[in-house]
Amino acid sequence: MIKLSEISTDAPGGFKKKETKEERENLSRRIGELQHLMYAEEKRSMLVVFQGMDASGKDGATKKVFRFCSPSGTWAKAFKKPSDLEFAHDFLWRIHQMAPKKGRIQIFNRSHYEDVLIQRVHKWIDEEHVSQRINAINQFEELLQFDNNTTVVKFYMHLSRERQKEKLQERIDVPSKNWKHNWGDWKEAELWDQYMWAYEDAINRSTIPWYIVPSDRRWYRDYFVAKTIVDIMEGFNMQLPILSEEEKKYGQGKS
Amino acid sequence: MIKLSEISTDAPGGFKKKETKEERENLSRRIGELQHLMYAEEKRSMLVVFQGMDASGKDGATKKVFRFCSPSGTWAKAFKKPSDLEFAHDFLWRIHQMAPKKGRIQIFNRSHYEDVLIQRVHKWIDEEHVSQRINAINQFEELLQFDNNTTVVKFYMHLSRERQKEKLQERIDVPSKNWKHNWGDWKEAELWDQYMWAYEDAINRSTIPWYIVPSDRRWYRDYFVAKTIVDIMEGFNMQLPILSEEEKKYGQGKS
Repeated sequence: MIKLSEISTDAPGGFKKKETKEERENLSRRIGELQHLMYAEEKRSMLVVFQGMDASGKDGATKKVFRFCSPSGTWAKAFKKPSDLEFAHDFLWRIHQMAPKKGRIQIFNRSHYEDVLIQRVHKWIDEEHVSQRINAINQFEELLQFDNNTTVVKFYMHLSRERQKEKLQERIDVPSKNWKHNWGDWKEAELWDQYMWAYEDAINRSTIPWYIVPSDRRWYRDYFVAKTIVDIMEGFNMQLPILSEEEKKYGQGKS
Repeated sequence: MIKLSEISTDAPGGFKKKETKEERENLSRRIGELQHLMYAEEKRSMLVVFQGMDASGKDGATKKVFRFCSPSGTWAKAFKKPSDLEFAHDFLWRIHQMAPKKGRIQIFNRSHYEDVLIQRVHKWIDEEHVSQRINAINQFEELLQFDNNTTVVKFYMHLSRERQKEKLQERIDVPSKNWKHNWGDWKEAELWDQYMWAYEDAINRSTIPWYIVPSDRRWYRDYFVAKTIVDIMEGFNMQLPILSEEEKKYGQGKS
């Protein structure tokens, strides 16, 4: 059982900004190589879920961590407020459509977890429905894993309330960040404690474990995510498929 | 009217490999900035179509040219042999679903043009049907432009027959390229002249013009594509949206 309030949102001691950024860049480069292997092998896929409060860095981490990957094999999808058509279906309907095919890294910026977070915090669904959804999520993620060899990697971007306020204020004060500003984020921020409770519960009731990313420092946040992804992907022991002598004969093998 | 046989597939004189690669890297970096602007502005989108014979570098150009773009706003879709469900619809059905929303660069690795290329070369459709499809394509691309501010940019990767043979052979000889090998490509290559005729006709009957990319040298090919994209995107005169003083007051503007 994790307790979010007991986990630091700051970078741990011993990590220095400059060195950590350089190391993150090396890790990103390695992820590019591993993505190429996954694409070439076409045997497995990976679903990377980013969840976190507004301004916690879901978009920033996506850009930095996967910067050496090819768009051909790396898709990112941001789930926003469902459309009328999406609302007229079960909550996993739109999610399932974006599940990665073999060979692909699929990134979710927000995900099916919103349906047990924002909807729960605002009491749009009752607790029995929340439990049903959490069960459905666990079964869905297991389905991806056992039936399509999809590794599900979930990151909670753990940001402090104070740091969020600073970052939301930056979006007003710094012209180049104005485009991200949205008063709606400020309104949601007032429900901070309820969100923390809902996140903690969703994380604790999840079968596939979450990574809690200390996110107050952008450079450490991106390093943490990159390091986690590299460690997981190295474990796949992927190999470029090599042709046998037989397959090199005209007309043999796949065509 | 373009005549493909009169257009060189080689890099023009005066371009040197090392300098051109460096310049391409600078252009790619600029495309990353422009993609960020497009994403932030959310007013327009771009559809980049890559067509060309096997091994002409559609995937390679995708990776190199867009390497500084964020996966959040840059999607690449490879269109392969249609599924049964796709075949049970008109040829633009699966294409339309992947049209870019505002703010996004969508890359097509192969596209709706296959339906007037491979299908025509193999005589799976008659000439009247080809004409109907070419009309439909022209109207479809104009629809994207006038109704969703989508700029359609189409590249024909112009490769010589000899160079294709070399590159297909490399896929057999070089272990790290084995994964790309497919005898089916060799079979299609035997229909080279018919493909050139079908490409030339499709290009000449297209309302939105094509860029013909000399593709025998990977480094020049990628430079040509990156330069074209930068020139087009600079022309958009995109600006980061800036908040007015009024919008900075709590509760004002979008929420």
